[in-house]
Amino acid sequence: MNRAPELPSDAPLVALLRGGLIESVHRGRFAVSDPDGNLLYSAGDAEAPLFARSALKPFQALPLVLSGAADALDLSDAELAIACASHSGEEPHLRAVRSLLGKGDLSENHLANGAHPPTHPPAAEALIRTGKPPKRVHGNCSGKHAGMLVVCRHLGWRTEGYLERDHPLQEWIRALVAELCDISEKVLGFGTDGCGAPTYALPLRGLATGYARLATGKGVSPDVGRAATRLGDAMRREPYLVAGSGNLDTRVMQEARGSLVAKRGAEAVWAAGSETGRGLAIKVSDGSERAVAPVALALLGRLGQGTDIEVPPVRDLLGRAVGELVYLGADGPERDG
Amino acid sequence: MNRAPELPSDAPLVALLRGGLIESVHRGRFAVSDPDGNLLYSAGDAEAPLFARSALKPFQALPLVLSGAADALDLSDAELAIACASHSGEEPHLRAVRSLLGKGDLSENHLANGAHPPTHPPAAEALIRTGKPPKRVHGNCSGKHAGMLVVCRHLGWRTEGYLERDHPLQEWIRALVAELCDISEKVLGFGTDGCGAPTYALPLRGLATGYARLATGKGVSPDVGRAATRLGDAMRREPYLVAGSGNLDTRVMQEARGSLVAKRGAEAVWAAGSETGRGLAIKVSDGSERAVAPVALALLGRLGQGTDIEVPPVRDLLGRAVGELVYLGADGPERDG
Repeated sequence: MNRAPELPSDAPLVALLRGGLIESVHRGRFAVSDPDGNLLYSAGDAEAPLFARSALKPFQALPLVLSGAADALDLSDAELAIACASHSGEEPHLRAVRSLLGKGDLSENHLANGAHPPTHPPAAEALIRTGKPPKRVHGNCSGKHAGMLVVCRHLGWRTEGYLERDHPLQEWIRALVAELCDISEKVLGFGTDGCGAPTYALPLRGLATGYARLATGKGVSPDVGRAATRLGDAMRREPYLVAGSGNLDTRVMQEARGSLVAKRGAEAVWAAGSETGRGLAIKVSDGSERAVAPVALALLGRLGQGTDIEVPPVRDLLGRAVGELVYLGADGPERDG
Repeated sequence: MNRAPELPSDAPLVALLRGGLIESVHRGRFAVSDPDGNLLYSAGDAEAPLFARSALKPFQALPLVLSGAADALDLSDAELAIACASHSGEEPHLRAVRSLLGKGDLSENHLANGAHPPTHPPAAEALIRTGKPPKRVHGNCSGKHAGMLVVCRHLGWRTEGYLERDHPLQEWIRALVAELCDISEKVLGFGTDGCGAPTYALPLRGLATGYARLATGKGVSPDVGRAATRLGDAMRREPYLVAGSGNLDTRVMQEARGSLVAKRGAEAVWAAGSETGRGLAIKVSDGSERAVAPVALALLGRLGQGTDIEVPPVRDLLGRAVGELVYLGADGPERDG
């Protein structure tokens, strides 16, 4: 191995307590920025890059509006929200994906994302009972892919190879990610997402800035700001379609009643933007999804976006509470939590 | 929150690399001991406690031999191995559990562990297709519970409440865990495992010592040593029953051809004992199972128990390799790996 990877500094964020003792610890980092790119507060290294994964989806959907497709095809909030979604494969999600594809005169056969079972357990079990394997439309990213395909169709670009790094759509998206996240396109790191699409690594502060801009439309060129606001509005109006039953993103957006846009990404990335002009980005260093909610809920409180959502206890298989996930604060117990 | 938890010192152990960049990092600690309790080398705090979870199962099964039940009921290697197992709910596992229960004139109805779907995906899917919910026998701990019940039946102890902390069997197990792991019973921390049984927190070095003793029968009283060896032999001869298809524990024991006993525990605990008198205990601090194999395989190599098992690449949903889990060594890249 010739790599000598630099590890970004981070801080203990969440502990799993069992019998009052610490069983496991999740470290991580977070950043809060405004639409001008100012870092307001943070824990750990706010400049070190992270792969933003599905937290990029609203930015990846911007061409759907900017290309004129959303207007020309009269796309609904549901169709725009599903293009920004990591959906859980429930029937309304599949309907929204198919509806979006249909408006572009496309079908499920055009989707090039990887198939996987619905992430909503009852939907996954229902599919198993049919005896049929998961299809691409069930993949949590199928709405993003449908949106990409609709842009290509609308602009007359080839739909084959729409995921290739040098496809004009992907080059456009890369430039938009850089603009939203307040960084030079040259420093965007490149990787391949779970669904096969390009994904980018960028500073944590940049992702926070991007969400402050997504939520407000401020800090970017007017046309991009209007497109961001239109997508943010669709997400705020259709929080169920952005994620799914019981999902944190859906629940915090429902409780916020239009004042918040929130989106998870794989490997425990989470981002949110508030109408008050605050963007938040979180990365749990080890990629554990279970540590996201305790951090996100505590930091939303600090942003004035507190909710009544509680982190459920850790239960044994008989349903008894045997432990809890506790937010430690950036500097130790109970600084913020 | 009145707690001010002490976080044990740990070290970066595994990185997930995507596109050549670090996406996620797993910290952890490990200890290597001999049967006399000497710490040979370690990373992170070897004295701080950890909940050993299912890595305790071979110790929890000792009364099955020490009570005379194993001899009186002529228990097979398969029946002893399943009592030490975190099995994946495949048919041979269920048969072994039922066989062990039958020898004690007990049935599945006596099991008090929590039910959950088989952890082997094809077995879980097959169960879903039957339309029936998982039963307790499917729980990965059902063999441990069957073993506990057989001891109670053999000694004439009550089978109701066999999981209670002050049941004579649980008190006996607690004393045995302390003896094997070279610590005072008074410092054992108490918690409730996922299956509802008592579990204990003990120093990482102690767990490593316990596995050196389990593998060799040395360092403990002769009767306990003989019982440990009998259980260790059963695990080494029936590695498939101790875990299941494709599982790391099963594979390393199969490759070691009788020279190694290995056992996982929940929240990314892993322990192994070698016939050469080395015990290894690993705790990934954040509890992520995926980080166990890169560490375990590297450290087995250092113990002279290297295998040809490779850590599979991280794949996208189309099956393409998009990343890798890399052992960083205790002090940085490639010290041991």
